[in-house]
Parts: sequence; C-alpha cells; structure tokens
Amino acid sequence: MADLAKGAPTRTRTVASIMSAGWDLFANKGFHATSIDQICSAAALSRGTFYLHFKNKEALFLALFEQHAEREVARIESAITSSAGDVDAALLSTLESLFANSEESRRWAMVSTEFTLAAARDPALAERLTAFEDALAARLESALAPILERSGAGAARAALLPTFIVALHEGLMLQQVVTRDRSLTRAVLTEFLPQALGPRQ
Amino acid sequence: MADLAKGAPTRTRTVASIMSAGWDLFANKGFHATSIDQICSAAALSRGTFYLHFKNKEALFLALFEQHAEREVARIESAITSSAGDVDAALLSTLESLFANSEESRRWAMVSTEFTLAAARDPALAERLTAFEDALAARLESALAPILERSGAGAARAALLPTFIVALHEGLMLQQVVTRDRSLTRAVLTEFLPQALGPRQ
Repeated sequence: MADLAKGAPTRTRTVASIMSAGWDLFANKGFHATSIDQICSAAALSRGTFYLHFKNKEALFLALFEQHAEREVARIESAITSSAGDVDAALLSTLESLFANSEESRRWAMVSTEFTLAAARDPALAERLTAFEDALAARLESALAPILERSGAGAARAALLPTFIVALHEGLMLQQVVTRDRSLTRAVLTEFLPQALGPRQ
Repeated sequence: MADLAKGAPTRTRTVASIMSAGWDLFANKGFHATSIDQICSAAALSRGTFYLHFKNKEALFLALFEQHAEREVARIESAITSSAGDVDAALLSTLESLFANSEESRRWAMVSTEFTLAAARDPALAERLTAFEDALAARLESALAPILERSGAGAARAALLPTFIVALHEGLMLQQVVTRDRSLTRAVLTEFLPQALGPRQ
C-alpha cells in the first residue's frame, strides 16, 4: 500500500503531533500568547520540521480550522441521515450534534474566536478565513437540505440558514465560555432553532 | 448646582478622557496589547490620576461595557416606544437599532469579544462580566415586553429572548468584522428575527 511507503506514515504522525500541540496551546494559553517554539517543544520537534509542514502559526490554525469543521459537518450529516425521514427527530439530532463534546466545543470557541479577531485586523488572513468559512457554509447547506425540503422552506431561507446557525452557535458559545451555563444555551436553541428550519410564517 | 461645585466637572472630564482613550486603544490595538501607560499617554494624564478613578484595566473595560450597554438598550427602548403599537414597525426599528452606528458596533464587537475571552480564563472577571450581562438581559427583556405582549408570545419565550438576540447579534458581528459584509447580516436578521419575536409555532 502506498501509505506504508517509507516517509508517508512519519509525515502523517509529524503533522498530527504538531496539530495536537497547537490545539492544546492555543486553547489553554491563547493564539497570540503561543509561540512556534512552544509548539515545537510540546511536539518534541525542531523548528525546521515545523516549517517543512506549515508556513507559519496562521497556516497551522487554518489546518486546525479545516479539520474541526470537517468533523462538525460530518457529525451533522450523520445525525440527519440516521433520523431517516422524521423531521422532528432530525432537528433534535442536529441540536444535539451541535453540543456534543462540549469541552472540545469550548476549546474550539476560544481558539476560533481569537483567530477571528486576528483576521479582523489583517486583510490577507481575513480573505483566507472567509474562503474556508464559505466552503463550510456550502457543506452545511447541503447537509441541511433534506430537512429543509421536508419542511417546505424556500431557497432564500435555505441559503441564509448556515449563516444563521453558525452565528447563533458562535454567539451562544461566546456566552457559555464565560458563564459555563450549558442549560441556558440548550433552552435557547430548543426554543428558537426549530422555527428557523421551518418555512417562514 | 451641585455639579458646578469645585472638582465635579474636572472629575467628569477626566473620567471621560480616560474612557475615550481606552475605547480607541482597545479597538485599534486590542485589549491585551494596550497598557495603562498608553492609555494615560493618550489621555494626557498621569498613572496616579488613572488609579484615582479605575482600579485596573479590567475596571476601565467594565465601565466602557456599562456605558455602551446603556446606550444600546436606550436605543432599542426608544425604537420600540416611537413605533407606538405597530408591531411590524417596532420589529423593523429594533432590527435597525441593532445595526445603527456600524463602525461603533464593529469597534465594540472587537473590544467586547477580546474581553470575553479574557473572562473565560479568569473566574473573578467572569463573575463580574456575567453580573453585568444579566442586568443587561433584564433591561432588554423589559424593553421588548411591549412587542412580545402584542404578539402573544409566552413568558418562557420572553425570558429566553434577550439571550437569543444577544447571541445572534454577537455571532453575526463576529462574522461581519472579518467579511465586512453588512448585507448578509441584515438578510439573516430580517429572515429569522421576526419569527423569534412571535409566539412559538
């Protein structure tokens, strides 16, 4: 098999340990407060090895962003698929999937919010982050399409729904990282998200 | 008049110039990257004068938070009052009031989000921020009460609405500070907020 060829598994392991070290440090200390040296030290690798795989700290963040977004969208797709036609069950699964792994979600909210602020002050970074987020929104729109079709929501609503869901999720997580009150988040989503997935009244 | 007594106007002017300098520096450089020395230098005051009025940088932020929240809630109250009974007009005014002064909103989103992240890593700060946000939510709930009563929404929805509106607003602003695309924000609010203010379907 090709990926057992000399080099390939080593590369995969190296990238995985850089990403894991970056994830831990960004979440615990903050994106700005973390240096590439600290990441290399936590991953037990040299700076030269880091730069073989990532151009800079921002590139490492974008790789983490892509990996996390892939997992989240896959979780939502799977929740919708496994509900097999029952719109209420699909809604409930989607809600639950947004709040699965809450410690991971908390860490992600911290890291991604800090990176968002960095991008707001750096046009080149803003462009790259926007491109990634647009791709995520397109996948989310496809994932939600079966629920929207069953509920009769129109195309305009379907196109705006990913932005709405991502904004609501990020805004609620931003409150939750401070209050650590998950029950309020869940109550707000349960109260307001189902209507958002239905047709406009 | 009491506030013309010796000292009072000077104190008011001093506090106002510290707050104005803090607001500019926090928005442009970031909360963490700004030092008290820089604030004093921008306000043309000594460190001793700063500490007569504020315990530390966090106390200055909390004063700015309170001032901004007061203004926002007053704007929403006024939009609702001036619509005098027309629920659709009140909704539209509320939407517009959320996005009035968009450059100020952008600066505020940057500053408050960074402070939220700091509070998430500091329990004492988290407690103070949460107390302020709870007071803001209570005022917002009162301000929105006339719209909710007319639309027939129940008490449970009324209690959750401020959290929903604040989360949606913060989440959308977090996207907008990066994309600088205000039209998408407006489209999402127009599509989803009116239903949120009506009874549960």
